[in-house]
Order: sequence, then C-alpha cells, then structure tokens
Amino acid sequence: MKAIQKPTAVPGFTLINAPIPTYGPDEVLIKVTLASICGTDVHITEWDEWSASRINPPIIYGHEFCGVVEAVGQNVTHVKPGDFVSAEMHIPCDVCYSCRTGKRHICENIRIAGVDRDGCFAEYITLPKNQIIKLPEPITPEYGALLDSLGNAVHAVSKANVSGNSVLILGCGPIGLFSIAVANALGATRVFATDMSEYRLQLAQQMGRVQVFKAGDPELYRQIESTTTHSGIDVVLEMSGSMQAFKTGLDVLNPGGTVVLFGIPQQSASPEILTDIIFKEATVLGVHGREIYSTWLVMLELLASGRLNIDSIITHRIPLSQFGEAISLVKSGNCGKVLLDPTR
Amino acid sequence: MKAIQKPTAVPGFTLINAPIPTYGPDEVLIKVTLASICGTDVHITEWDEWSASRINPPIIYGHEFCGVVEAVGQNVTHVKPGDFVSAEMHIPCDVCYSCRTGKRHICENIRIAGVDRDGCFAEYITLPKNQIIKLPEPITPEYGALLDSLGNAVHAVSKANVSGNSVLILGCGPIGLFSIAVANALGATRVFATDMSEYRLQLAQQMGRVQVFKAGDPELYRQIESTTTHSGIDVVLEMSGSMQAFKTGLDVLNPGGTVVLFGIPQQSASPEILTDIIFKEATVLGVHGREIYSTWLVMLELLASGRLNIDSIITHRIPLSQFGEAISLVKSGNCGKVLLDPTR
Amino acid sequence: MKAIQKPTAVPGFTLINAPIPTYGPDEVLIKVTLASICGTDVHITEWDEWSASRINPPIIYGHEFCGVVEAVGQNVTHVKPGDFVSAEMHIPCDVCYSCRTGKRHICENIRIAGVDRDGCFAEYITLPKNQIIKLPEPITPEYGALLDSLGNAVHAVSKANVSGNSVLILGCGPIGLFSIAVANALGATRVFATDMSEYRLQLAQQMGRVQVFKAGDPELYRQIESTTTHSGIDVVLEMSGSMQAFKTGLDVLNPGGTVVLFGIPQQSASPEILTDIIFKEATVLGVHGREIYSTWLVMLELLASGRLNIDSIITHRIPLSQFGEAISLVKSGNCGKVLLDPTR
Amino acid sequence: MKAIQKPTAVPGFTLINAPIPTYGPDEVLIKVTLASICGTDVHITEWDEWSASRINPPIIYGHEFCGVVEAVGQNVTHVKPGDFVSAEMHIPCDVCYSCRTGKRHICENIRIAGVDRDGCFAEYITLPKNQIIKLPEPITPEYGALLDSLGNAVHAVSKANVSGNSVLILGCGPIGLFSIAVANALGATRVFATDMSEYRLQLAQQMGRVQVFKAGDPELYRQIESTTTHSGIDVVLEMSGSMQAFKTGLDVLNPGGTVVLFGIPQQSASPEILTDIIFKEATVLGVHGREIYSTWLVMLELLASGRLNIDSIITHRIPLSQFGEAISLVKSGNCGKVLLDPTR
Repeated sequence: MKAIQKPTAVPGFTLINAPIPTYGPDEVLIKVTLASICGTDVHITEWDEWSASRINPPIIYGHEFCGVVEAVGQNVTHVKPGDFVSAEMHIPCDVCYSCRTGKRHICENIRIAGVDRDGCFAEYITLPKNQIIKLPEPITPEYGALLDSLGNAVHAVSKANVSGNSVLILGCGPIGLFSIAVANALGATRVFATDMSEYRLQLAQQMGRVQVFKAGDPELYRQIESTTTHSGIDVVLEMSGSMQAFKTGLDVLNPGGTVVLFGIPQQSASPEILTDIIFKEATVLGVHGREIYSTWLVMLELLASGRLNIDSIITHRIPLSQFGEAISLVKSGNCGKVLLDPTR
Repeated sequence: MKAIQKPTAVPGFTLINAPIPTYGPDEVLIKVTLASICGTDVHITEWDEWSASRINPPIIYGHEFCGVVEAVGQNVTHVKPGDFVSAEMHIPCDVCYSCRTGKRHICENIRIAGVDRDGCFAEYITLPKNQIIKLPEPITPEYGALLDSLGNAVHAVSKANVSGNSVLILGCGPIGLFSIAVANALGATRVFATDMSEYRLQLAQQMGRVQVFKAGDPELYRQIESTTTHSGIDVVLEMSGSMQAFKTGLDVLNPGGTVVLFGIPQQSASPEILTDIIFKEATVLGVHGREIYSTWLVMLELLASGRLNIDSIITHRIPLSQFGEAISLVKSGNCGKVLLDPTR
Repeated sequence: MKAIQKPTAVPGFTLINAPIPTYGPDEVLIKVTLASICGTDVHITEWDEWSASRINPPIIYGHEFCGVVEAVGQNVTHVKPGDFVSAEMHIPCDVCYSCRTGKRHICENIRIAGVDRDGCFAEYITLPKNQIIKLPEPITPEYGALLDSLGNAVHAVSKANVSGNSVLILGCGPIGLFSIAVANALGATRVFATDMSEYRLQLAQQMGRVQVFKAGDPELYRQIESTTTHSGIDVVLEMSGSMQAFKTGLDVLNPGGTVVLFGIPQQSASPEILTDIIFKEATVLGVHGREIYSTWLVMLELLASGRLNIDSIITHRIPLSQFGEAISLVKSGNCGKVLLDPTR
Repeated sequence: MKAIQKPTAVPGFTLINAPIPTYGPDEVLIKVTLASICGTDVHITEWDEWSASRINPPIIYGHEFCGVVEAVGQNVTHVKPGDFVSAEMHIPCDVCYSCRTGKRHICENIRIAGVDRDGCFAEYITLPKNQIIKLPEPITPEYGALLDSLGNAVHAVSKANVSGNSVLILGCGPIGLFSIAVANALGATRVFATDMSEYRLQLAQQMGRVQVFKAGDPELYRQIESTTTHSGIDVVLEMSGSMQAFKTGLDVLNPGGTVVLFGIPQQSASPEILTDIIFKEATVLGVHGREIYSTWLVMLELLASGRLNIDSIITHRIPLSQFGEAISLVKSGNCGKVLLDPTR
C-alpha cells in the first residue's frame, strides 16, 4: 500500500510502498477513505525540536482520517467489516491517575497513532478496538476526515458553557474556525472572532453567524459594548497564543466570565492579566485534545442532527501522492483544512 | 384608569375606574403597554381553592406585562421616564435563607404583584425599583408582555443542560411551547414534544425544529431510537404533571440523563419510576418560577440576538375592556398566549 | 483451593475444593486475604427471583475482598506479585454509550465477578488487569475487604455535595452506616441519621459525629430546627427505600437542597413528595454502584490520610468454612459487616 | 463616642469623639463589641496610592467587627435590639449586571463601609438592614470580629472543591492561615502550606492538620510525592502573589486540578506557567471578597457546628485608644489577627 513515511531523523518524508498492516485479536484493520493534515504533520515533516525529541523513525504519520472497516480481531464486537468509522488516535493506558479519574485524554502515558506508532497517511491502518468510533449515516467522508481537529473545537467550546452566552474567539486557525460553527450550534447568543490574517477572517465569515475583526481593531470593543445586552463577553476562547489577545479577552470579559486557554503561549502574562482574573473572578480553563469519548458523542450528534455546517473550512483535496504540495499549502496559511485522498 | 379588579371573595371580576397609583422614593410608576394572561388569572377569576386561601380582595390582578416608565422615585437611578421596561412580579424579602443563598425566586416570604398587591391588568402600575428590567431595543411590546412565562421556560430549559443534548418536552401548554423554541436556541441537537391536544401539537410544530407526537403514541419510542445517535434522550422536560408522561420520559432517558419536573403532579409516582431514577442514575430537578435575575438576562440576550422566535405562540390580542372574553378563550385551551391591550 | 459455590439453580451453597484459576495475558491472579459478605450474597444463597433470572450455576460467588497479587499476565505492568490489592468487580464493556461518556459503573453490558463469573469467596481469584487497584500502605486487610460497599457510600455522599452542608441519612444498613463516617470526613457540618432498628442506631452512634433518631420520631424535626443555623437540611441521603422516610427528608430539606436516592423503593411516591421537589427546587440524584474509578481514588485517599475510621462497623470475622453461619448472621440484621477468612 | 478617623488626605489618623450616628427607616444602629484590623487599614493609615485615589476624608474607617443591635429603623424586621450581629461591609447596588446574576460581591458599583462611608473603628456604626447578619449562639465576640477576613478564606476554599481532595496553600498571611482550618473543616484529605516567614509557619502549624514548609524548600515536592496516593495536589490556593509560588503549585498539581488565584501578583506569569495550565487542563479560579451571602451562611454553620477552631490566629487584643500601637504591630508581620476593643 501507499504510505507517507518519516524514514530517518531528518527533515523530509518518503512516499513508500508498505505491506498492509496485520491486526491482533483486540485490533481493527481499516481502509482509509480520506485523511486530513494537521499542523503537527508540518512539524514532523520539517523535523522540529519537538519531533526530534518524541518520534522514533521509521514511522508512517498522520492522525486525522475516516475509513471503512476491512477486518476485525476475534474479540471485537462493536464494529464489523464494512462499517464506516473514524478513530481516536490518542491511545490511553487506562491505569494511570488521569485515566482512572475520567480524564483519559490527558493520560500520563498517552501513545498517539501517527506519532508514537504508525498513523493514517496510508491506504490501511490498524488500531486497538476501543479507539474505533462508528459514524452515523448522515456524516460524509469529508466530515469524517476532520473529526480529530473538529473534536478539539467541540471540547474547547463545550468545556466553557456557551449556551445562552456571548462568545469571543481569539485566533482563526482551523480550530478557531471550527469553534465559530460549534459555538453557534451549542447555543451561543453572539459570536465575535479576531485574527491577524485577512484570508482567515474571510473564512471565518463563512463559518456561521459571527462578527469578525482584525486583531487589535478597537472597533471590536465598541461593537461588543453596543451589541450585547450586558456590554460584555461571557466566554472567551483564546486560540492564538498571543498575550495581547488574552488581555483583550479579559478587557471585554463580563464579571464571573470564563476564558478557555487553548493556543500555546510564547510570551508571559502581565500582572494586569492576572489581576483582571482575580478582580473579575474569571474562570480560566486549560484545554487540550478531546475527551475520550464524551467529546466524540456530542460531535457526532451535532453532525448527525444537521446543526453543524463546516463545508467552507474544507478548501483543498489533494492526492496522497502529492503530499509535498499539500504540506507546502498548509505552511502558507492560505487554506482551511486540506484533505488527502489515499486512493490517488 | 381602567383596571381589572377582584372586588370581593367570590367568582368573577369587575372592570373598574381606579386612580393612577402613587409611588414612593424607591418605586417606579409604569404605563402598561401590553399585558398577557396566565393560567393563574383564570384561577383568580374563578376563585378556586388556592385563590380563596391566598388573595385578599379588593385587588387588581395580572402579572405579565411590559410598559413605559412614567415616573421614578428619588432613589431610582437605573431607569428613567420613557424607558421601555418589564418587571419581575415576584418580590423577594432579601433576608431569608433562600434570598441569602442566591435563590430569591423561591423566597420563603415572596410577595407577588397581581396576587398579594396590585398587578398589571390596568393602565398603570407601581413597583419597587429593583424589580424593574429595562428592555433592549430589538424587543417588541408583544414579546415584552410575555417575559414572565417565557422566563419559566428559559429557567426550566437552562437548569437542565440542553447544549449538545437531545430533548423531550412532555406537555405543550404555553411553557412547553416556549420551551421548544428555547431548547433550540440554547443548543439542543434534537427536540421531541408530546401533548394530548391536536391544537397544541399544531402550535408546537410552529415553534421551531421539533418532532411532535400525540401523548402515548408508541411511534415516539421508535423515532427516538432510530433518530438519535445514542438511541435515547439526554434531557426530559416534564411539563404535563402526568405520571404516564414521567414514565415515558424515564423509559427513553439515557443513562445519567436529566429530568426537569415542572408540571404539578396529581398522581403518585410508581416504584418503577423511582427505580428507573436510581438505576439510570438520573438527575431530577424541581423547577419553579424564574431566577431573579439570571434568567431574565439570558432571556433578554436570546431575544435581542434574534435567536428566539416566539411569534406563532401569540394567537390573540384583545382589549382589556373585553377581559371576560379573553378569560373564556384561555379556559378553552384553543389559544396560545392571549395579549391584553389596556388602551382599549 | 477452598471456595463457596452455587452448584445448581436451587437454594443453598457448597464448600468445594476447586483448582486455582488460570490467568490470561491481560489478567491478574490474586490470593484472597479477606472477603466480606454483601446482602446480594444472601440473595444468591437463598436463590431469590433476581438470582434465578441472572445467575448461571455453577459459580463461585462473593464480590468484596482484598488480597495479594500471586501472578500477572504478560501485558500487566501496573501491579506485580506481592502487591496488596483490591478490585472493582463490575467489569464494563468499554464501548457502550455509558462507558464512552464516563459512566462505566452503569455500563449497559456490565459483567460482575461473583455474579456473572467466578468471585472472591475462595482462596484465589483471577480478574482482568484494569480492575485491579493497588492499595496504599496504611490500609489494613480489614478495611481492604470492605472497599466495594464503602465505595457505594463514598459515591453516594460524594455525588451530593456535603462539604459545608448539613446531612440527614435515612436508613442505617451498612451503606448508611459507612455514609455517616464518609459525610463527616468529606466536610459535613452536621450529620443526622434514622433507622427502625435499635441495634443499627447503636452502631450508627459509633460511626462518628452524628445525632441518631428512631425512624418516625418527631424529635428529629425539633432537633434539626433548633440545631442548624438555617433550620433545615442541605443534603438528604435516602438509603432505606421507604417513602415515609423520603417524605421526612423533603419536609426538612432546605430550599434548593439535594436528595440522593439509593435505597430501592417498594412503594409509590405521593403527589406531595413530587410537589415538594418542585416547589423546593430540590435536586434528586439517583445513585447506584461506585464510579470506576473516581470513587476508588477518593476512597483510598480518605483512608490513607486517616480521615475515615470505620472500625466499629466490623462486628464479626468468620472462617470461610463456616459460611452458613456467616450468612445466617447477616440475615438476622444483628451485625455490621461480616468478614470471611479464606485461610480457615 | 470614640472613633478612629482619617481626618484629611495625609498619612496618620485621629482618635476623635464623634456623635453616635443616626439611622434611617431601612438602617440598623449597632454598638460595636469588638473590631479587627485588616491590611487595608494599614494602607489607609499610611495613605498609600490606592487610599489616595479611593477615599474621601474625613471618614471613620475599619470594616471587620461584631456588635449588638442598639436600634432599628421602622422597615427592619429580621433583627431587633439586643441581637448579636456582624455585617457584610461591601454594599452592592442590586441593579448592575453582577448583582443581577448572583455575583453581588463583585458589584460594579460596590460601596464599602470603612472605605466609602463610615466604618466600625468606633463605639457605634449604622448600616443598611440587608447587610446585617444575626450570629448564632455558639459564636463568640472574638470569632464574630473576624468574619470578614475568615469569609475570604471560606469563599476561596469553597470555590475550589476541597472535599476529598489534597490541598496546598501558598502564603500564610491571615487569609492563608484561616484557609488551613477551613480546608480541614470542608473535608480536605491533606493540607500542605508554605510561607517565607518562620513566625507565620509556626502559626500555620497550630491551625489544624497541616504539613508546613518554607517557601522554596524542595522537601515539599518529596513529601507530596510520598504522602499522597496520586502523588500530587488536587487544589492549590495561591495566596502569596508570588509567581515562584504559582509555578510550584502547577508543578505539583494533578492533571485536571484547580488553582485558586487570591494573592495580588506583582510579577508576570511565565510561558511555562501558562503551558502547564493548558497541558494539565487546570482550572484557574480568580477569587475576590466573599459571596453575599452564601459564604456567610456556610461560615456561620461551620462555626456553630464546632468544625472550625481559629483560636490560635487571634494573637493580640488591644484597646481602640491604642490604635497606633495596633497598626504598628500589624505592619511588623509578627502577629496573627489583632482585635480592637472599642470600650477601652
């Protein structure tokens, strides 16, 4: 089968012809229908510091996909050949403190398919049975290939309570863009979003009911003040990693409001930011990954019920054999989500 | 001014010509724009057991309305003459256990305007300043007159968490009908509703995305099973007072789901109902009234942001001087909400 | 090895000499140190309706124990021979809706060791690796043998929030007795308890800070009114299954308070009970089993930190070979928890 | 009457002879039994930047006290002359967003007695009726005088959920010291505390079950690792304002744990701190003041039930007429809480 491999510990990748993987009694073999590229795949390709410290080549990478069950091990009962499925690629240990207290997505011994074992940029993939999620009928392959990163947005938005609340999303990368649609679906009264990039702001505009602003535009403050009944924002989703954005979020946050921290910060948070948290009695929630599997079940129901339209974020569909072009596109930032077709 | 009065402790009412009420330093005088009839007003008119035990005539009744501030006492700063307002008619004591622990809507010493002091079926009404809520611009008088009972629905739906969840509403009286629209606005993935009355089911159909069923129709079970991803309901709103309905709700409830009890029951709950609660680890929430004022602020933002369309529930608009006809209509059940125009 | 077996589908039991069980690659073999008898074991011995419908003899029963790891399968890493352990005997399927939403203790396909596969009334037992819990050092074998039923109490008390709240426990069977100690450890300000049996009330008195009353004694109302600052109870734990007890609990419940339903009811709940739930805006929580494994981790920390003294509930220690006498004792009700020593 | 006044906008104070204050129909006149000094009173005496920007002399200051009702206005019914009381000195506006959503303690228009109007360093004080809290019998004047700052600790500890959890308190000023006792009373399994000052650490040792460490001592990490079952802390209370302390707290925090921010920071939070919050999915809660009045009711019940012993924090009792000496003592840091006796 065709597969994208990191062969050795240097930048680059190889399109290889690999054997179809075997499967054990508690595993499932899946034929990949569509995959999708995440920022992490760019890091692995470029072999950044994190990749060098974590990954042991040779490895097939990729961790966003959907497919059709090809074969199942003898202990597998909840799916069967022919089922349309996706999978949680974070594989928890099930016995650490996090796993035993309902937080398997932050398992201390997590192993990630596509990082720590072979992933989905291939025609076939084998995974442990518990990781496999059957997809209900209305979900298309295009949507099925995006569930890993859509799940990040569903988890971030769900963890804050947006129902009946106003929301500000800081940063319109793919997770931020998904969050616009998810916040609307989960009952936000108003959604505002900011980003530095005009391209991203145009995509944002198409994700649902939202008012978009260039990051730093003071008009954001005026619109929030004049539009919302209480002159402020109930839930801020910080998805940019920028401390200016964080400060903006706290400026417009209502007393007792919630800030979700999702973007990885490179800068320090000023004493003013910390003091705002205290005097506004803000709740700041660190968010990472997706819950295994509460997030998935909410996400499937949002999609199956038709409450979530994410068509406009899918900007490109590229053959797996043109993986290099696909990675370049993601690096440029001038795209939404880029799908990979392993059959071509 | 024109007003509807219960003159003595017998069935009936009188359309009187009363003096415009005075106001103290902490009170606000309001010119009523539109009022609305609640089931309680039927009870007061007919002088049922509850009315006889609670109400001291003579009294002007009515407790759902909106209007324009005519004059304010000297200590009033948050509203001024000309402001378009509504009011919370439940007046808490502010010093009992409930009031001091954030539950003023279930104050042990509650006094209700329209029940314990003069109400809004009149051209003017005086109320304590804290009870007055300024209405944001997009809210029309028709909507403004319904906020008391819409608030019951917003409180009931908010207390359960419907965001990302499937919802079943048992009973399509006005609060049940409102709840269909509110559940959709607050992010429910699916809404199902039942009632005995064909008239009510037709109104229900117009309140938003909903699947309606005659109470007792086994097709409800089949549709829930086939439609929802997890073959069950996450949140049941019991608004009928019927124990058959309660049992149906528990039958289809997902493990760990939530049931809101709102309809006043006349029958006993069977051991099967109680055992279902235990083995499904259900959460059963008693709900009464509206939170003072958290419910109001969510409700205003839902209306001002355009997420809530409740037009179809407003079926009649009748002059205050034809109050008898209006009460007969409400008693018949063949109506949604009936508005009263005090200017005519 | 010695073991207590239900050989065929009739009342009674047999003390057998069985082979030491084998273990697979994902299983652990444990030498039982001490076991404990649950009411369910009485039902199995007497072969009641539930037992007849659920259990397929021959089977070794018993589901409360602690022991020492004798051997581990090749995939087991979190425990090793010599470790002192207990185990969650409810074995979830891991792929149903409940399992995937963090409610594995109410798994739709649950299998219980001691009910659906061989249990712990034996010198050795084999269990799947994930079920095994390593016990920290300060926990004695006597306490280790009680963790299954102590866990029921920890789950029931934890699910309600007793911290800073007053608590009333209705019913002083073993779970009710444990709940007295657990409520004190988890920060209850006051604990009241009722039962019909003088023997149980005397045991209750020894479980920690508590005021005990005979069920139905009106002095309970007077003491709650005069003792508590707010003249009422914040959290009621209904552990008797009696509707009179439930009504008493609602009578004294503070507005907005919480009732945990744990005892299985045989009677109907009156309209007054349901109306109290609504007008007090009570939260009623069905509780069943123990969370897998959040409850366990809280329980271990309560025991290891010395906050929980449950010595007085351990009234008897009997050789496994005298199982018949032990069952008779449990049936009589004149005991706390009865331990079984498999070495004798 | 004797009173401590800030006469003009300069450092210092004056012991004056003032008239007993009058009271309106909604006010209560109280004879002060005992008062207590807060750090804010040092700032007002020394006339720091905050004082200069906020306070309009002349004003009597002091905001922690208890006393006996001397007289009540005509609209006051919940207290009567002779009642032993304390008072919430933060007076909310009741109509802003915070007040209307159950967060009156962070009212946007808050007025503080002792800062914005006359306070309690005097023989008598007048306050609005709703602010007055009747104290149950077991509470002594010494405890009654400390409820304002004890309330800060009760609010901070309550907002995190310490019940069944391990707790680390960073900073042993008076609020940190109170928090040791409160965390134990509310059901913490373990309490650790750190401070720079040996004097404070000795006081800390006397506040209840606690392990104390000098700030920065690596032995803290070892003790937490070896003592707790899960090798980490569930709830961190940051009460020092130090970013080193905040980082220590995040280092030892369990995945999914909670950090309360209470101490006002002067430094920036490093990217490592923010990244820890994200990858541990920590919940960071800003906390300020006390809830009006949920905190009070929990606090009164904790005291009345005897769960809270705070004797060792009361280190000094000084006549009001020696206010200068009392302020010097508080400035030195070599004291716990310092009580003021207005009768001397």
